[in-house]
Amino acid sequence: MTGERERLRIVLVSPRNPLNIGAAARAMSNFGFSRLRLVNPYDVAFREARSAVGAQHLLENAAEYSTVAAALSDCALVVGTTSVGRRELQHPVRRLEYGARLIRKELKAGPVALLFGSEKYGLSNDDLSHCHWLIRIPTEDRHASMNLGQAVALCLYELVRRPATALKAPDRTRRATAENLELLTGLLLDALQQSGYVQPRTAASTARKLRRMTHRLDLSARDAEVWMGFFRQILWKLRKNAPS
Amino acid sequence: MTGERERLRIVLVSPRNPLNIGAAARAMSNFGFSRLRLVNPYDVAFREARSAVGAQHLLENAAEYSTVAAALSDCALVVGTTSVGRRELQHPVRRLEYGARLIRKELKAGPVALLFGSEKYGLSNDDLSHCHWLIRIPTEDRHASMNLGQAVALCLYELVRRPATALKAPDRTRRATAENLELLTGLLLDALQQSGYVQPRTAASTARKLRRMTHRLDLSARDAEVWMGFFRQILWKLRKNAPS
Repeated sequence: MTGERERLRIVLVSPRNPLNIGAAARAMSNFGFSRLRLVNPYDVAFREARSAVGAQHLLENAAEYSTVAAALSDCALVVGTTSVGRRELQHPVRRLEYGARLIRKELKAGPVALLFGSEKYGLSNDDLSHCHWLIRIPTEDRHASMNLGQAVALCLYELVRRPATALKAPDRTRRATAENLELLTGLLLDALQQSGYVQPRTAASTARKLRRMTHRLDLSARDAEVWMGFFRQILWKLRKNAPS
Repeated sequence: MTGERERLRIVLVSPRNPLNIGAAARAMSNFGFSRLRLVNPYDVAFREARSAVGAQHLLENAAEYSTVAAALSDCALVVGTTSVGRRELQHPVRRLEYGARLIRKELKAGPVALLFGSEKYGLSNDDLSHCHWLIRIPTEDRHASMNLGQAVALCLYELVRRPATALKAPDRTRRATAENLELLTGLLLDALQQSGYVQPRTAASTARKLRRMTHRLDLSARDAEVWMGFFRQILWKLRKNAPS
């Protein structure tokens, strides 16, 4: 995907608010995209946006166009964004989850443009006529319209998201070993025996119960060491105070 | 998921910028979440935020707390958000794709809090100590820090997103039937014959070629009708102008 991100052009049509241009640029930078194109931006907005946190370089390299057609000329696939409901749409509308998948596929072959309309009016019918199809972010019907910067962030996130990651834990922390959990269980049992919590005749069943409990803690290796330290200290004190 | 959305508490710790509070509220409203909690917000920011587009109701019902602990008291699972790298994290860190899946599961049982730190400093070590684990949005290492409103939007989107939708097209537009594509192919062939494009001895192979081409257009039923209209008109004119 890395090289392919260079092939995506984020096209903002007639953006009016510098904060939104900046937010779009920042999201692009967050997710490793760099090609920003502005069609007919409100000049003051564009100049002010250049101070967006962490995205100056990207904004300096943003290209400005006077027409939508000019901004799309090198793109083989043009996808618009919409909150639907606003008008009779003549285009196929795809939910973001599926649309992003099609875009990812197309980016392997060549440049793709993703169009966002102005904050107030969205994409005009004329803008839409340049699109092959539209993406809809799955917002609630009664409050469908999204903030521009957030809409850009969501589309880019869906493009870089890893479906496989949702299914499996990428566990970076080293888990406590069975050996350490057994040591911890032993220390805990010892401490509870010294404290009179455990009765000799139920010691075996209590040990099993404690073992299940220490396993349920799902401890990291480091935390297991710390817990063992706690109980060693407690045991030391219990033995020290015990009547000899 | 609908009823479960009521169980998620979005907790903003020490937010400073009214636009960010407003953006977080707007994203919640976009995705059908309603429980916003603010810990120690900068007063002016909170008051100004109340004008956020389409989220007034949500902001009016936002609860204010003076400590993180108070804001979390009814939650059985507390998940923090981080851009990592900033410090030695003592918590398991899960990518958003997987973390959201765990949250969805927990929301079936009871309330879950999702914590976001201040724009400048993120969550403090003290805030983090209240968390069971952390979520990381998969941003680029060299520009990991996200805008607060965008981060909230991404987490909520991942919670409402439908994995199955990514795999199958929810095709709402009615596709052209084979019968109509055949009619269209016939009209096109006729027009090309009348225009002298098709030679009688290659007519059969040309017909097959045209049929493949009309199928590749992937036309909607409505567009197929329109195209047939084009060719009927063209044929009418070609025949009218033909020498009799």
